[in-house]
Amino acid sequence: MLRLLIELGNLKRLPRTGWLLRGVPSPESIAEHSYRVALITLFLADELKAKGVEIDVEKALKIALLHDIGEARITDIPKTAQHYLDKGKAEKKAVMELLLPSPKPEEYFKLWREYEEELSTEGKLVKFADRLEMLIQAYEYERAGFQNLDEFWGTLEKLRESEFYGHFRELVEGLVEMRGKAK
Amino acid sequence: MLRLLIELGNLKRLPRTGWLLRGVPSPESIAEHSYRVALITLFLADELKAKGVEIDVEKALKIALLHDIGEARITDIPKTAQHYLDKGKAEKKAVMELLLPSPKPEEYFKLWREYEEELSTEGKLVKFADRLEMLIQAYEYERAGFQNLDEFWGTLEKLRESEFYGHFRELVEGLVEMRGKAK
Amino acid sequence: MLRLLIELGNLKRLPRTGWLLRGVPSPESIAEHSYRVALITLFLADELKAKGVEIDVEKALKIALLHDIGEARITDIPKTAQHYLDKGKAEKKAVMELLLPSPKPEEYFKLWREYEEELSTEGKLVKFADRLEMLIQAYEYERAGFQNLDEFWGTLEKLRESEFYGHFRELVEGLVEMRGKAK
Amino acid sequence: MLRLLIELGNLKRLPRTGWLLRGVPSPESIAEHSYRVALITLFLADELKAKGVEIDVEKALKIALLHDIGEARITDIPKTAQHYLDKGKAEKKAVMELLLPSPKPEEYFKLWREYEEELSTEGKLVKFADRLEMLIQAYEYERAGFQNLDEFWGTLEKLRESEFYGHFRELVEGLVEMRGKAK
Amino acid sequence: MLRLLIELGNLKRLPRTGWLLRGVPSPESIAEHSYRVALITLFLADELKAKGVEIDVEKALKIALLHDIGEARITDIPKTAQHYLDKGKAEKKAVMELLLPSPKPEEYFKLWREYEEELSTEGKLVKFADRLEMLIQAYEYERAGFQNLDEFWGTLEKLRESEFYGHFRELVEGLVEMRGKAK
Amino acid sequence: MLRLLIELGNLKRLPRTGWLLRGVPSPESIAEHSYRVALITLFLADELKAKGVEIDVEKALKIALLHDIGEARITDIPKTAQHYLDKGKAEKKAVMELLLPSPKPEEYFKLWREYEEELSTEGKLVKFADRLEMLIQAYEYERAGFQNLDEFWGTLEKLRESEFYGHFRELVEGLVEMRGKAK
Repeated sequence: MLRLLIELGNLKRLPRTGWLLRGVPSPESIAEHSYRVALITLFLADELKAKGVEIDVEKALKIALLHDIGEARITDIPKTAQHYLDKGKAEKKAVMELLLPSPKPEEYFKLWREYEEELSTEGKLVKFADRLEMLIQAYEYERAGFQNLDEFWGTLEKLRESEFYGHFRELVEGLVEMRGKAK
Repeated sequence: MLRLLIELGNLKRLPRTGWLLRGVPSPESIAEHSYRVALITLFLADELKAKGVEIDVEKALKIALLHDIGEARITDIPKTAQHYLDKGKAEKKAVMELLLPSPKPEEYFKLWREYEEELSTEGKLVKFADRLEMLIQAYEYERAGFQNLDEFWGTLEKLRESEFYGHFRELVEGLVEMRGKAK
Repeated sequence: MLRLLIELGNLKRLPRTGWLLRGVPSPESIAEHSYRVALITLFLADELKAKGVEIDVEKALKIALLHDIGEARITDIPKTAQHYLDKGKAEKKAVMELLLPSPKPEEYFKLWREYEEELSTEGKLVKFADRLEMLIQAYEYERAGFQNLDEFWGTLEKLRESEFYGHFRELVEGLVEMRGKAK
Repeated sequence: MLRLLIELGNLKRLPRTGWLLRGVPSPESIAEHSYRVALITLFLADELKAKGVEIDVEKALKIALLHDIGEARITDIPKTAQHYLDKGKAEKKAVMELLLPSPKPEEYFKLWREYEEELSTEGKLVKFADRLEMLIQAYEYERAGFQNLDEFWGTLEKLRESEFYGHFRELVEGLVEMRGKAK
Repeated sequence: MLRLLIELGNLKRLPRTGWLLRGVPSPESIAEHSYRVALITLFLADELKAKGVEIDVEKALKIALLHDIGEARITDIPKTAQHYLDKGKAEKKAVMELLLPSPKPEEYFKLWREYEEELSTEGKLVKFADRLEMLIQAYEYERAGFQNLDEFWGTLEKLRESEFYGHFRELVEGLVEMRGKAK
Repeated sequence: MLRLLIELGNLKRLPRTGWLLRGVPSPESIAEHSYRVALITLFLADELKAKGVEIDVEKALKIALLHDIGEARITDIPKTAQHYLDKGKAEKKAVMELLLPSPKPEEYFKLWREYEEELSTEGKLVKFADRLEMLIQAYEYERAGFQNLDEFWGTLEKLRESEFYGHFRELVEGLVEMRGKAK
């Protein structure tokens, strides 16, 4: 398992290439992104639960922590590259093999698929958190003065179409509003 | 809650000062550290559970994600500074106030205290994961060529004295062995 | 004394956290800030002297060089943290202990207090230089494209209320004007 | 063509992931690597020509400049990822499409294939220069204090098996010797 | 020759000071600039040739690769410094001496002079490519949010006065237009 | 004077090229170096004075602060470049012109010459401090794991030949000893 933990250290060293390609110097790492995704998942899951939505918080947190670990092997392949590479297939295999020395490879892989294919409430929630995190980061970069990030805001539509939007409308639209003010 | 999520972005921007002061250029952020602590917690908790140890994995994961969030307000105050500042008291208050707009401020704060004061099995496990993560990172920096990190390895004793050491002896001693080979 | 000189090297490695938290990548270090504070102090003190103001230039320069050295031990604790930590008390003790192996610990500490508590003309002048330096840096970051630094400009009022404002009005208002043009 | 030139700017922003994953902070970019590959190609080609070897220098230079341009779209996918992704196929398609707005898409693509599949003397020479450049960079990192780069030196065997080794034995073995002294 | 190749590695480590002085953090290196200059030269030369202009592509590529190598010894001395230093003379001597261990010192030096003094079509074309590359980079920095780069755009006039402008008007004016839109 | 203060900000942005060329990533700036030189000068001057040596501390501090300001215009031209460029002459003129809008251009320029040509006790002391600072920094980089810095230690001889060596032998030899232990 030690080798697995060391290999997961790659997620600290690998930049999120979307920002890099748009000229943000020393952008966030995959680990930094995943950390806030997990925090968001925690807060949203607990809020949903408080509202009576049936949700397994433990499962949601596990999914959030694992959702990008495949990138420790395949790196954060940007959109432009996905036109040429079957990222989905590669990531699936990488996640499966990477997890082999972990305590519960099958369970973890099953959880990862729930995220990737949006198969469960928890998987969908992490997808929602993943997108929201990216937009918060985009907002933070824009607020600091970086530009050329409009493309990312297309993701807003996916948040608005999500089944969780009703619950977190304020969060999503609050971000849009803050962005408007900062511009 | 949006403001909380943005404020937690500070954890991406703030370096872990221990490495910085020893001359590691652009060292890991608090968020990067916390992310691997959470992953380690996940694996160790699931392994303990599989071995029949009574442990609440959800609780452990929540603690791991929250264990350093106070640093979003007070930053990673290094050892040398703690001689002059009451970090414990400051962090406690910062965590409490920071969490106010979160869905479950009291529960989260209680969890944070379980870590800080090692009050529960889960709190102790995250402490163990926190220390192990730091040593894995120290090993990675040493392997890359950085030196002057001996001081960190004093933490080894705390891992060996932990109630979890029996379960994860291989992990801890395996790291020590790899370090020996790399030198 | 050698250990002191090495410890003061921390000031090169430690970032000014105000910029860091607002998203400036790889911002200036404490040493870089202190260096220009000392240069500004030199120019302002010499100008005041030429105008007939009674001022001890040597003393002013010493204060400028020493004004932030406590941060070699306690780091640059940002505003958000000062709500939770008694920075003043910590810094005082850190400066005192840090200076012990220096040639004149008592004199230097006395000088530092003159700055910290604005007890003398020279201490007040360095405070003025310290604030001016920060605003020049803010201007430089804004000119380079960074945003989200409005908060810093609140310091302008403190410059305008200073007893030195009359002498350096052109400098202060010139900066405000340049900022206006760059926007 | 302007859009092509801008897109090729990605090669400045994208790090060579091999170094990144081994802990070199802010390692060289793909553009930096490609630049020295082209310089090495120039020198080796001219030397071969002077020795009477039949070689088309213009062609060799074109190949050197183009050999990694596909990475402007697919990034520098590291070895660990190539186990999961068909990099060869992706790169071929990316190079072909990327070059469409260039003055001579077909010729350039043909040249790229000569490198990729080592189809011509010039293609083979650039492969030799590509490997040599990587080892010179590895040597430079090791000389600066970085470690954990042994794996890269396996490439030495490929240089020694090359048809150009006889001509540039001194260069290759000189590097090995310098490495030995630096250790 | 090995020492020459290692020394040319300096071009990867040395920043282009024009950007640095205007506050771009971690700006491009000389090697990164030279790489895109060579690519631009390749495309423009091939296009000119296709249009029937008499041009030696091999020669043009050699010039592009060599045009800034003197900076491996004298660094990228910015405009402000050239007021005090005879950069031209220094660079000439540095290029000459640097190339001594290369396969064809005299030829390469002659080529470098063709660029420096714009003595040949190929030398002039690389000058054109050098300026165009700088403006594309300026555009990319501006697009990412950096400001304070207006001064660089004065170079536009030199592009417009060039004998190649007629052939590449679309390229030059297309860039100006894209800049206008991004602002 | 405002423009002068802003121009001196260049010293924060410009790296010390000696470290850069030897592969230290993101090395110290000229401002960081100058800051510690001024601190060392302060301590050494006060110590000399306490020992009864006749020395003007104010003058020494002014010299320390001004000793490298010419580099705000001509940058830190490395040794390799000084073979081709008359740095001394350029720096002299740059310092003179740069200081024009300062309160006391002639006095400051005179002080700078005392350093540059080692014309006074104070000028010689800053030279001593300048060299000592560089070696302390070299030690710190070596302690952090960087190598390839042996060349810098040749400066040790100049420290040992200095008239101040008798007074600060412990400091100099203490550093040598610490270096020996760290290796």
